[in-house]
Amino acid sequence: MAGDGAAVPTSEGAHPKSRTAARRAQRRAPTIDDVALAAGVSRGTVSRVLNGGHYVSPASLTAVTRAMRETGYVVNQSARTLVTGRASAVAFVLPEPQERLFEDPNFSVLLRTCTRALAERDYSLVLMLAESAEAHERVMRYVRSGHVDGVLLISTHAGDPFLEQLDRGGVAAVACGKPLGHEGGLPYVAADDREGARQMTRYLLEQGRTRVATITGPLDTPGGRERLEGYRDVLGRRALKRRIASATDFSIEAGDAAMTDLLARSPDLDAVFVASDLLAAGALQALRRAGRSVPDEVAVGGFDDSRLAESTQPALTTVRQPLERVATEMVDVLLQLIAGEPVASRILPTELVRRGSA
Amino acid sequence: MAGDGAAVPTSEGAHPKSRTAARRAQRRAPTIDDVALAAGVSRGTVSRVLNGGHYVSPASLTAVTRAMRETGYVVNQSARTLVTGRASAVAFVLPEPQERLFEDPNFSVLLRTCTRALAERDYSLVLMLAESAEAHERVMRYVRSGHVDGVLLISTHAGDPFLEQLDRGGVAAVACGKPLGHEGGLPYVAADDREGARQMTRYLLEQGRTRVATITGPLDTPGGRERLEGYRDVLGRRALKRRIASATDFSIEAGDAAMTDLLARSPDLDAVFVASDLLAAGALQALRRAGRSVPDEVAVGGFDDSRLAESTQPALTTVRQPLERVATEMVDVLLQLIAGEPVASRILPTELVRRGSA
Repeated sequence: MAGDGAAVPTSEGAHPKSRTAARRAQRRAPTIDDVALAAGVSRGTVSRVLNGGHYVSPASLTAVTRAMRETGYVVNQSARTLVTGRASAVAFVLPEPQERLFEDPNFSVLLRTCTRALAERDYSLVLMLAESAEAHERVMRYVRSGHVDGVLLISTHAGDPFLEQLDRGGVAAVACGKPLGHEGGLPYVAADDREGARQMTRYLLEQGRTRVATITGPLDTPGGRERLEGYRDVLGRRALKRRIASATDFSIEAGDAAMTDLLARSPDLDAVFVASDLLAAGALQALRRAGRSVPDEVAVGGFDDSRLAESTQPALTTVRQPLERVATEMVDVLLQLIAGEPVASRILPTELVRRGSA
Repeated sequence: MAGDGAAVPTSEGAHPKSRTAARRAQRRAPTIDDVALAAGVSRGTVSRVLNGGHYVSPASLTAVTRAMRETGYVVNQSARTLVTGRASAVAFVLPEPQERLFEDPNFSVLLRTCTRALAERDYSLVLMLAESAEAHERVMRYVRSGHVDGVLLISTHAGDPFLEQLDRGGVAAVACGKPLGHEGGLPYVAADDREGARQMTRYLLEQGRTRVATITGPLDTPGGRERLEGYRDVLGRRALKRRIASATDFSIEAGDAAMTDLLARSPDLDAVFVASDLLAAGALQALRRAGRSVPDEVAVGGFDDSRLAESTQPALTTVRQPLERVATEMVDVLLQLIAGEPVASRILPTELVRRGSA
């Protein structure tokens, strides 16, 4: 599992006094959180003490070191390599072309929120793009060399070598969205993509639409695959092949192309569930060009509730995924992994947001 | 030099400035012994502090942590020596709010071009934002710990502590644009901001304009200060105070506000040289609102020739700065520094690009 190589403080042999404390703590090694609790300070303060005492008052410094003694928190020798080797930094890895970072508003929300959540724990975020196989290799080499303590894997594609390598362990890592094919091995935080897609498909049917099509994301991504599954869950045999189009990526252009394709294959469609707001913006473009009015002739439902959803014409009815919460929980899980604590993947609820397009 | 395994290496070879052996000795990485000496405690006490503060009096603890700060001792040193050689990575440091990264197209050009130039040399780029003083401290700690071999400092402000710290040596670093107040100490690559501003101001006069105003960038930035100097070089005593407005940052909103201010103070202006394309887009907005036609009543000249310049109404006459070349030369200079070769700052020529606005 990820995290095995990280700084794992143990109380073993540290101090006779501390043994009771450790036992009291259910035989697990005391963590930085235990120290913070005992000292009555934030985790960030403890972290700053461990990193050299910058911005720490003498009073907090005394409280923290006393708490370290009391809880039996020790940075053991192999972890010394890691205090030593502890970078107090985490990589935000985006295996996408640079353009996606700048075009997809989801990434800037994730970046901002992860940066803030890490800053509270006195961690740095380093952003690494990995567009090519060579860049990918360089990222893994960098990560394995201990220049960061863990990885936030921001987007994933089935078969991606990142998944394979990070699942193999040795590096603390958390994926954003289900890591397809590695759900059991690599912890992740995801919005409930499948249930969100069900919510939207049901909603479109409730509005009296009878020929509901869908534009999926790329089917090697969790957002592509899971949201299609949700659509199928609700429509069953009514999920006709000619009403399903898959976009090549999550971009406006791909949404436009997929919608154009759908209109050619299923001119009678009266609604379309689109697997992201960016794709939906492209679909709206194509519908406008084709002279179909939204929502009168075609209802359009998106997914994300990104800032884009309010600025389209008409504004998008969409499925809100709690992206800020995804980001903060990813940071939580990753720091737990780094501290050697057991973790579980987390799936967060989505919510339908009604606006003008459906 | 950065990258030789030590955390706080010397800048030897990096810079002609620090060439003597004496300085080399002064600038070697501080050791645990230096910390002990500075704190007036034994080596063992320092070691115990590093291992969690057991059996250390509060007084010694305070003394040791203060000594770590004063000597610049960084805990990650020993790990660095374990990881042989270099990180083969470079930090792309942006001391700006995250929004600037996404809004200013110059940054995405620099990011893409630096990434590619580094990839050709098998180096990774790690992007670090440093919006707050705390983030700044974390970046410097990360850099000093040898997790990167050098720094591309993408934007600078006079008085910025990054400039002070990087000028002090020990870290290979190159600034984008003149690092104000540190031109002699910190190598940089810049477009010829001053000459570019002269080109545009002269051009506006040649078009028969007689009341040429200017919107400068923030005057603590090289782009703000140097471009104002160029404007003054050409206008001399005709550079009236009421025809000069300074924007608070390089954004559309700030350009709009500065133009509005100028129109109130100098309603008779017939041209304006604006120190960036983003600012010029804001100025065009304000002129439109005020009912002034461009270029008939007011000629507008920008600076950058970013992709924005072609999409404004009318398209911008502007000064092209060769941003891709700035980026590749920054990478060149930095890798020379890392290799211990002597380097010189580079100033690249600009070029006037005529479109519709002037």
